[in-house]
Amino acid sequence: MDIAFIGTGIMGRPMASHLQAAGHQLRLVSHRSPAPEELVAGGAQVAQSVSEAVSDADAVILMLPDTPDVERVLFGDESVISALRAGTLVIDMSSIDPLATKAFAGKVAAAGGRFLDAPVSGGEVGAKAASLTIMVGGSEEDYARAMPLFEKMGKNITRIGEVGSGQIAKVANQIIVALNIEAVGEALLFAAMAGADPAKVREALMGGFAASRILEVHGERMIKRTFDPGFRIALHQKDLGLALSAAKSLGLALPNTAQAAQLMSVCVAHGGAGWDHSALVKALEQMAAHEIA
Amino acid sequence: MDIAFIGTGIMGRPMASHLQAAGHQLRLVSHRSPAPEELVAGGAQVAQSVSEAVSDADAVILMLPDTPDVERVLFGDESVISALRAGTLVIDMSSIDPLATKAFAGKVAAAGGRFLDAPVSGGEVGAKAASLTIMVGGSEEDYARAMPLFEKMGKNITRIGEVGSGQIAKVANQIIVALNIEAVGEALLFAAMAGADPAKVREALMGGFAASRILEVHGERMIKRTFDPGFRIALHQKDLGLALSAAKSLGLALPNTAQAAQLMSVCVAHGGAGWDHSALVKALEQMAAHEIA
Repeated sequence: MDIAFIGTGIMGRPMASHLQAAGHQLRLVSHRSPAPEELVAGGAQVAQSVSEAVSDADAVILMLPDTPDVERVLFGDESVISALRAGTLVIDMSSIDPLATKAFAGKVAAAGGRFLDAPVSGGEVGAKAASLTIMVGGSEEDYARAMPLFEKMGKNITRIGEVGSGQIAKVANQIIVALNIEAVGEALLFAAMAGADPAKVREALMGGFAASRILEVHGERMIKRTFDPGFRIALHQKDLGLALSAAKSLGLALPNTAQAAQLMSVCVAHGGAGWDHSALVKALEQMAAHEIA
Repeated sequence: MDIAFIGTGIMGRPMASHLQAAGHQLRLVSHRSPAPEELVAGGAQVAQSVSEAVSDADAVILMLPDTPDVERVLFGDESVISALRAGTLVIDMSSIDPLATKAFAGKVAAAGGRFLDAPVSGGEVGAKAASLTIMVGGSEEDYARAMPLFEKMGKNITRIGEVGSGQIAKVANQIIVALNIEAVGEALLFAAMAGADPAKVREALMGGFAASRILEVHGERMIKRTFDPGFRIALHQKDLGLALSAAKSLGLALPNTAQAAQLMSVCVAHGGAGWDHSALVKALEQMAAHEIA
């Protein structure tokens, strides 16, 4: 398939490379930063604008930082929409605002294109290993068409429902992950300050209702003080921002998500934008003037 | 072993019955409420006071509602302490304040007794099935002595550390369970209100970092609206109270635990003291004037 791949950063680059290795023809854009050498060496064509890259493509994949980036690439000057052919499949794999996504999909459809939102979780490790979790919103038909591409990039691939629901699931995921990290932070810091061994407590709790992937993986990081990312606090902060702004539009209060976002701001205030998100516990430690270990 | 078992309520009754079935001689007290018939029929002796029940016992097991109950039975009139023989093992399986526990253990030791705190999780179902998780604080020697008793009542049995650390682990457990329930509530209500199918979202998220026992069990309860306990909000509210008062003594802020406790008060305000703790989501729904399903 002829694929315009827009956004070959830390995540997009290995994802694009898996598609290339599977025999797909990549079209990249170099006007903001040079196209990755290994993709060009592998046969990727380099265009000077998004519209040029998109004009002959069967599918367009976006892997961009945030909602305004996706909006600019889709609808700005020399953008996707200006070069879209009837039936071209636009797959937005960025993690962006679910409500904006529905509006974007409507405009792409009005221009004759097809749209899927397909945000991922699993981070750089998952992107490199082609083991990403992919949460998809869009029609059954478009989902089936994109599946051969998804299968080259991820493992746990689910169609949640109509357009926008992939982004909704991703936001829900980021809410739970942040709040489970915060929960483990409160519990282990409590245990340590009350005089118990947090490692023993974690071990005992893994056998019961407190068990979670976060207690397992991030609980261990808190105890061993290994706060290299992983997933950066600044990125998770962005995701909680999406949750809170969408929730506000919906008339929904997310009290603990709001609290966790504030604790991330505490981390950022102490130089932690680049810490792993498990370092959220440091905000609690900062307030208590005490550390788990 | 000759065991004074104080507190044969919903939890204590099946626990005592497992000990009796294993051949232990039970001594019960009837002065507050009659001793359970099936235990008396099984050969339990019934005393008129705690001190009478304790006077010839090798071990004393307490399974009482809250810290003041344990304090009264240990140190009040005709109490455990007044009848304690040298070396008698006092095992407090109630869920109470970890800091008070350390003080109680000190007073029992000063009177010549031995002390273990051994709170449980698993609820009435776990008590009946003898599959409770038991978190133990106390010396290795006392732990070894009590193990044959614990093994008749539970499955996942861990010595966390010195006296008080069983209660610390239990509090940590209740913090995580409450906050993971709240997290799943925020995420699934967000998903439903944003227009996605919360059941599909739950399913997709179970494969990644958001996976937890709570997402699995309580997430399903929220979607299916099955809010019969299980574990009552009023009891979990008591446990969060223990967390918050101990944390205050320690100089520790638990912002999301405090928030979750407030949401439990919202449930209680709406008649929910007896709802299952997964119904915590109803407080979020109440605020949003919207339900997951």
